[in-house]
Amino acid sequence: MHDFEFSTEVTNLKRSVMRDLLALAVDPGIISLAGGLPTGELLPIAEFQDCLHEVLSRDGSAALQYSPMYRPLQEWIQAYMLEKGVSCEPDQIFITNGAQQGQAILSRLFLNPGDVAVTEEITFTGIQQVTAGRSMTMRTVPTDLKSGVDTDALETALRSEPRPKMAVLIPDFHNPLGVSMTREKRSKVAALSAEYGLPVIEDDPYSALRFEGDPIPPIKAFDQDNSIFYIGSFSKMFAPAARLGWIVVPTQLLPIVTVLRESFDLETSTLIQRTVAEFLSRGLLEPHLEEMARVNRERCQCMLAALDDHLRDLAVWTKPQGGLFIWVTLPENLDTMDMFHDALEQKVIYIPGGAFAVEGGHANTMRLNFSNVKPTAIQEGIKRLALVIRSSLT
Amino acid sequence: MHDFEFSTEVTNLKRSVMRDLLALAVDPGIISLAGGLPTGELLPIAEFQDCLHEVLSRDGSAALQYSPMYRPLQEWIQAYMLEKGVSCEPDQIFITNGAQQGQAILSRLFLNPGDVAVTEEITFTGIQQVTAGRSMTMRTVPTDLKSGVDTDALETALRSEPRPKMAVLIPDFHNPLGVSMTREKRSKVAALSAEYGLPVIEDDPYSALRFEGDPIPPIKAFDQDNSIFYIGSFSKMFAPAARLGWIVVPTQLLPIVTVLRESFDLETSTLIQRTVAEFLSRGLLEPHLEEMARVNRERCQCMLAALDDHLRDLAVWTKPQGGLFIWVTLPENLDTMDMFHDALEQKVIYIPGGAFAVEGGHANTMRLNFSNVKPTAIQEGIKRLALVIRSSLT
Repeated sequence: MHDFEFSTEVTNLKRSVMRDLLALAVDPGIISLAGGLPTGELLPIAEFQDCLHEVLSRDGSAALQYSPMYRPLQEWIQAYMLEKGVSCEPDQIFITNGAQQGQAILSRLFLNPGDVAVTEEITFTGIQQVTAGRSMTMRTVPTDLKSGVDTDALETALRSEPRPKMAVLIPDFHNPLGVSMTREKRSKVAALSAEYGLPVIEDDPYSALRFEGDPIPPIKAFDQDNSIFYIGSFSKMFAPAARLGWIVVPTQLLPIVTVLRESFDLETSTLIQRTVAEFLSRGLLEPHLEEMARVNRERCQCMLAALDDHLRDLAVWTKPQGGLFIWVTLPENLDTMDMFHDALEQKVIYIPGGAFAVEGGHANTMRLNFSNVKPTAIQEGIKRLALVIRSSLT
Repeated sequence: MHDFEFSTEVTNLKRSVMRDLLALAVDPGIISLAGGLPTGELLPIAEFQDCLHEVLSRDGSAALQYSPMYRPLQEWIQAYMLEKGVSCEPDQIFITNGAQQGQAILSRLFLNPGDVAVTEEITFTGIQQVTAGRSMTMRTVPTDLKSGVDTDALETALRSEPRPKMAVLIPDFHNPLGVSMTREKRSKVAALSAEYGLPVIEDDPYSALRFEGDPIPPIKAFDQDNSIFYIGSFSKMFAPAARLGWIVVPTQLLPIVTVLRESFDLETSTLIQRTVAEFLSRGLLEPHLEEMARVNRERCQCMLAALDDHLRDLAVWTKPQGGLFIWVTLPENLDTMDMFHDALEQKVIYIPGGAFAVEGGHANTMRLNFSNVKPTAIQEGIKRLALVIRSSLT
């Protein structure tokens, strides 16, 4: 085969080391605390089946054809956003194939190759992947493990030259940190966005997964100048395979975002849009979220207790009020990537925290998932993990 | 709202004039020959419903979770490609959200902003949209209305400086021209691709929609050097809302294409992949394609006869052996874009051919769809169209 010449953007994309490591975890005896999946046992299979059946029976061929965005779905999401304190028109709910596509669209809208974007120092690998695809320079700001992103550092980052063109933040139940940004910080971020004229992408796949404490409005609710771009997703709420998310887009930007999205993959399946709208309009989401909150609270508490039993003297960790993840910090001299093969031998896996560190470092950290692991497996998994960690100390 | 600064790529994207024109066509009495949809009455609703039910009953939560590509689907497509004379491994069948996403992925793989790409002078607007998104320079080659792309002109284009980085061709039942490339030309394109080391994207959403004549192997079947990139799609075969397509990717490029695609939208719904695989493995595709061929042949013949009845003295048109479209050429002095509002008044619409002309011109042409219009409407539609054309002559 010819040595094809690839685009510069593509040569900037890096294959994830984690992909290769996780591919080694084939033994069914392995307890995986590495996933990022919603609670498998609770996926609403029968309900989804029923909605699909109804949509195909009722809407016939329209549900299998090409189609514009499905208005009833946009209207439902509009009402959902209003409850969060975000007021917009149904048209402004721009349907995407999940949150990742929202990130990709907005990155391409605002960034030229080489432009600077601001992210949290530790953030979801998908954000890194999308933005690295724009071959841009990342400028990072630290995130406090109790209150969310450091807004003073954010202001410094916005003032620095060359001026950034976009920022991406995860305010609720941060992946991988598990922390939520305080109300005050959200308000401050919105003010900074307006002051510096900087589009801030608010990535929110997790806020509906709260199991403790009071909801905090999204940054978008504090938006002063239509400069906050909220991205939502149904993937973690009830079905990753729906591949359905949305962006709240300012009306003036709808034409350009529409053309831009069509250059990605034309449109989102109308069958899926109609089915999700059916699921939502039947009122099935609320009881499902309640059930997930009950189970996830129990699992999170179980993991926190197990960490306390086995690692109290060695590690510190975040105490999330929702979402999927706990972030564990070990003594400085430990390296969770080095430790991974031992863990695999002990049949427990996790994601080394360094995988989320945009500029490297943070080798002594790890992300643990509690949402898709049963309590007995959580207890056994943390016990195994503690053994691995202790044997790395010597 | 702030005047946001957009990326250069985005400012190159143009809002389709046709979108605005088609939005005017709301009167239910309008006969639309403008669509690009497969035959609506034949969409396999009950079959799809049944397959969805089966998949969710059988595969349970796995069908609603995140998931890698669905191997049985890849295997089915591998066998399908083998019948077309293309031999590859199941892994090489890279599943996408439809053909447009395949185009987007390959454009981003091979093109830097500003690079030259070769397309046919008249080609599908989606190809223009995707490639314009890479802000590149298009170099076009003419397409013969009987034998497909002009391969001599293609060779000249490949030799010219600056050297193109990629070419995109539609060999079967061309959109909008309706023509298919001869076997000899396909072989020649493959040879040129190898000789000049140029990746050729072969866009094939239509070859399964043949209703006359013998199938011709895809360009990929003549590939000498792994430099032909075949893109397939199920959208026109049985359901646009499946949003499911594939690229045949050389094994060596799989890692980079995988990472690149994840930067678009992570993955294609496993629920949809499993459902389509179920549909295919039940043997439902073949009878469906046969039924479509029967209906489309009838509709195409009906339109050709109506054109002959009403426009014999004024126009010439292509005589497709499959696909969805007929291409009509009117006298040089007529402009089908100017004529559009008259047509709307006469309650018939079409796509002005200029919309498909990458470098402009071709104002005296139009694209007509026969697949999604009933015979009586085709007859009436062409009659109205002839009136509009004749009144434009004076």
